[in-house]
Amino acid sequence: MTSKIPVSQRAAGIEYAIRDVVVPATELEKQGHRIIKLNIGDPLAYEGFPTPAHMVEAVESALRDQKNGYSPSYGVPELREAIASDEQKKPNGGWECSVDDVYVTAGVTEALQILFASFLEPGDKVLAPGPHYPPYMAYPPLFDGKVIEYRLKSEDGWKIDFDDLESKLDDRVKLLTVINPNNPTGGIASESDLIRLIEVASKAPLCTVLSDEIYDGYNFSDSHISTASLSETLPVITLNGVSKVFYAPGWRVGYMAFHDPEGRLSQVRDGVERLLRSRLCASTPAQYGFLAGLTGPRDWMDEYRQKLLEQRDYCVTRINDIDGMETETPDGAFYMFPKLTREKWAKDDKQFVLDLLHEEHVLLVHGSGFSREYGSGHVRLVFLPGTEILEEAFDRINRFMK
Amino acid sequence: MTSKIPVSQRAAGIEYAIRDVVVPATELEKQGHRIIKLNIGDPLAYEGFPTPAHMVEAVESALRDQKNGYSPSYGVPELREAIASDEQKKPNGGWECSVDDVYVTAGVTEALQILFASFLEPGDKVLAPGPHYPPYMAYPPLFDGKVIEYRLKSEDGWKIDFDDLESKLDDRVKLLTVINPNNPTGGIASESDLIRLIEVASKAPLCTVLSDEIYDGYNFSDSHISTASLSETLPVITLNGVSKVFYAPGWRVGYMAFHDPEGRLSQVRDGVERLLRSRLCASTPAQYGFLAGLTGPRDWMDEYRQKLLEQRDYCVTRINDIDGMETETPDGAFYMFPKLTREKWAKDDKQFVLDLLHEEHVLLVHGSGFSREYGSGHVRLVFLPGTEILEEAFDRINRFMK
Repeated sequence: MTSKIPVSQRAAGIEYAIRDVVVPATELEKQGHRIIKLNIGDPLAYEGFPTPAHMVEAVESALRDQKNGYSPSYGVPELREAIASDEQKKPNGGWECSVDDVYVTAGVTEALQILFASFLEPGDKVLAPGPHYPPYMAYPPLFDGKVIEYRLKSEDGWKIDFDDLESKLDDRVKLLTVINPNNPTGGIASESDLIRLIEVASKAPLCTVLSDEIYDGYNFSDSHISTASLSETLPVITLNGVSKVFYAPGWRVGYMAFHDPEGRLSQVRDGVERLLRSRLCASTPAQYGFLAGLTGPRDWMDEYRQKLLEQRDYCVTRINDIDGMETETPDGAFYMFPKLTREKWAKDDKQFVLDLLHEEHVLLVHGSGFSREYGSGHVRLVFLPGTEILEEAFDRINRFMK
Repeated sequence: MTSKIPVSQRAAGIEYAIRDVVVPATELEKQGHRIIKLNIGDPLAYEGFPTPAHMVEAVESALRDQKNGYSPSYGVPELREAIASDEQKKPNGGWECSVDDVYVTAGVTEALQILFASFLEPGDKVLAPGPHYPPYMAYPPLFDGKVIEYRLKSEDGWKIDFDDLESKLDDRVKLLTVINPNNPTGGIASESDLIRLIEVASKAPLCTVLSDEIYDGYNFSDSHISTASLSETLPVITLNGVSKVFYAPGWRVGYMAFHDPEGRLSQVRDGVERLLRSRLCASTPAQYGFLAGLTGPRDWMDEYRQKLLEQRDYCVTRINDIDGMETETPDGAFYMFPKLTREKWAKDDKQFVLDLLHEEHVLLVHGSGFSREYGSGHVRLVFLPGTEILEEAFDRINRFMK
């Protein structure tokens, strides 16, 4: 009776490039090497972007007030209220979001799992941009759904290829994902492209738009628009949370907000609510921290933004000076997605990442981890570390390239 | 294009009795009624069991130290170490748990989702005790698994019916669940029953034991034994966390620990690790609170235990005085699962719960929500509220019965 017990196919198939490359990096660290990590989208992993004090104090205060028990499964009511109000007042146009439209989750990843579980029957499709954040690829198959990538045009600022999108939109498409600002490219969709996307999606009979706006506050051209604000009838589910814009990813508090003017999602919402109740709640004291972020002052964001902009510009300059890499200037998020211009690396970006890691101890993420079809031949890096660290990283990358 | 968008069958089928009965209770509260809630297993929902100050302070300290970013996907290393050490030193016998055997999750519910996703192929079976905590019924079908209940003997202190268990154990059984102390019955399995369970399970070729020990510190007869400590070869996965024994359920920190002496679960663990990486991490600052709980003083537990024992005994006396209800004295957890002795209610425990709620504003959970086959004709109540509240609750129940 010593036979191996097999893993399920669904779990064996999960890939998450961003953390999977951490495994060899951790090995090197155990050997005593210092790794410069440009792989993880965590502002707290670097100096210079602490969680604001008023948010920290709000969590402390909740802890001391013994708000340490389970909270309502859909979220602490005051937080749901604040989120609804924030969605109503988004900079370039909000939408009529009510407190009942908001469900608080353990980060956007939990919202995704619950949504895919609630929408997908075997063989149903999720359209996701190529390239995209890996859970959009990993999770639908857990619930027997298929992920189809629609092309973002690398040669044209990672804009949506609408010919490609339209050709893939059929009556099995239940969810059309938009990641805006995009992870990994940092691209921001224009208003006209979002309007066109809603028009196109409206032709598919059962399609809901899933709009991941977790980076919406990283919006250097001030052009970001909430997808829901542009939809008159088509259901749009907005995803966001405390992690990025409010600098507390480790708290694990996110949300999904349902914009459904014609009430077409009532059955899906019943399923979502059942799943939410079954898993009890998101971390209670942390929800009060997000509440303080949403309702408190936001002037601190200016300084963070200025610092990020400087770092972004530094990266663009350095990358475009390196023979073998080139990048566009991202308008949003804190990622860039440079192209590897040498054929050897363009064909095998994962080997590039592993070789760079082993030779120069700089950790990036391979573009094929974000899309085999549309992301290969690129790498993702974060511009969160301070200029001093970035300088060293690019010196090393430059040396590696030579 | 105004057709309803359908919910998936898997989500529509989710039931979670404990929170589902909250829906009508919330309606009554909106009308201005005060509900005495004996439904939720949350010590923080009542006076008298605050999260200990040294644990709260540890989370505050982590927050101020800016431990607000993502943490390692398998858990903060110091916490994994402390959990491993705690499993080694369990009161009636520990087991050789190493830091690598421990994975920290957002409560036991997340561990369950990940385990079922990693173990189950379509048609695989999970055996769960009847009655049992609802997620054991709700989650396997999300991953196309089947749940089969094995009988606990209501007439014999909710002990395992081994004839029934053996008859249901075949080569499609991947997981055999033990909940010890049991939720909802409060029963504690004896050492000899656990040894027999391991023997029986060892006959099934692909069976792993899933041992939910989240209530192991509520052990009024000091008889609780860790299942893993009794297994020489059979894989046992222990589930536990900060929620119950350390009085911080809202923090959402749990764990699963793999006892696998023959290394048969290596493939399953690879799948588990993939899923863990894809969802990033459990709440980071809260993990430091659990760490403080595990490594700090435990003398405060004596006082909590004494209070709970008094409340338990009060409930037993009151229930057995009520014409129409009778209960055994639970040795563990903070639940009791009295029987409804009148035929009318025995046949429809949900109606009993709803009628009691509407007439007397006391909220219990119907036993059929924990098992249609083996839990019907009972109700679950928590003995966490102080005696004053319990007194009022039983006065009301008594009046309702008359």
